[in-house]
Amino acid sequence: MRLRLHFGDRLMLGPGKADLLAGIRDSGSISAAGRAMSMSYKRAWSLVEEMNAAFGAPLVISSRGGAQGGGAHLSPMGEEILAQYRALEQRALAAGSEQIEAIAARLRDISEEK
Amino acid sequence: MRLRLHFGDRLMLGPGKADLLAGIRDSGSISAAGRAMSMSYKRAWSLVEEMNAAFGAPLVISSRGGAQGGGAHLSPMGEEILAQYRALEQRALAAGSEQIEAIAARLRDISEEK
Repeated sequence: MRLRLHFGDRLMLGPGKADLLAGIRDSGSISAAGRAMSMSYKRAWSLVEEMNAAFGAPLVISSRGGAQGGGAHLSPMGEEILAQYRALEQRALAAGSEQIEAIAARLRDISEEK
Repeated sequence: MRLRLHFGDRLMLGPGKADLLAGIRDSGSISAAGRAMSMSYKRAWSLVEEMNAAFGAPLVISSRGGAQGGGAHLSPMGEEILAQYRALEQRALAAGSEQIEAIAARLRDISEEK
């Protein structure tokens, strides 16, 4: 299950941005995080800038920019937003597991195909 | 919040398909339901065929096909899948409301802009 939050015209926050934040936290680099997601450096930067602009404080602190990709880390607000999004995913999945299983149980049984 | 279920390679089920099912139920027509979503007839039919093929029984019963668009209605399984998806949305939203509010509260206050 994938969750995407739409805050009017201001921001969409979904699995791609969440995974990018997690990658930046783990790799210390916007370019490395993007690369691990098969995302261009430009695309990764664009998503980071979008998030940084949407929140009251930047989520990602880039110590040096530029094409070679300086270091980057999550701000306290970045850590908080990522944690809230992950908690949301877990809680939503737990709350909806019965419905998800009911839908999955109605899928055609592909093991019956010849 | 928008939810998209990914069942491996077999099916993605998200707000678009759910709204299309609801539109078919309410309008009795695939083409009318698609039109109300600014979706081409071809696109609406393609989504219906994808859903019908993925489940153990068709979700949408089309009494007459063709470009002029015959009548259509949801099968009992179509009603069930739509109801489960809507219940999932409600339950997930309720379970995650605290997290969603926490994220929304961190968005930049655009009313402060000059």
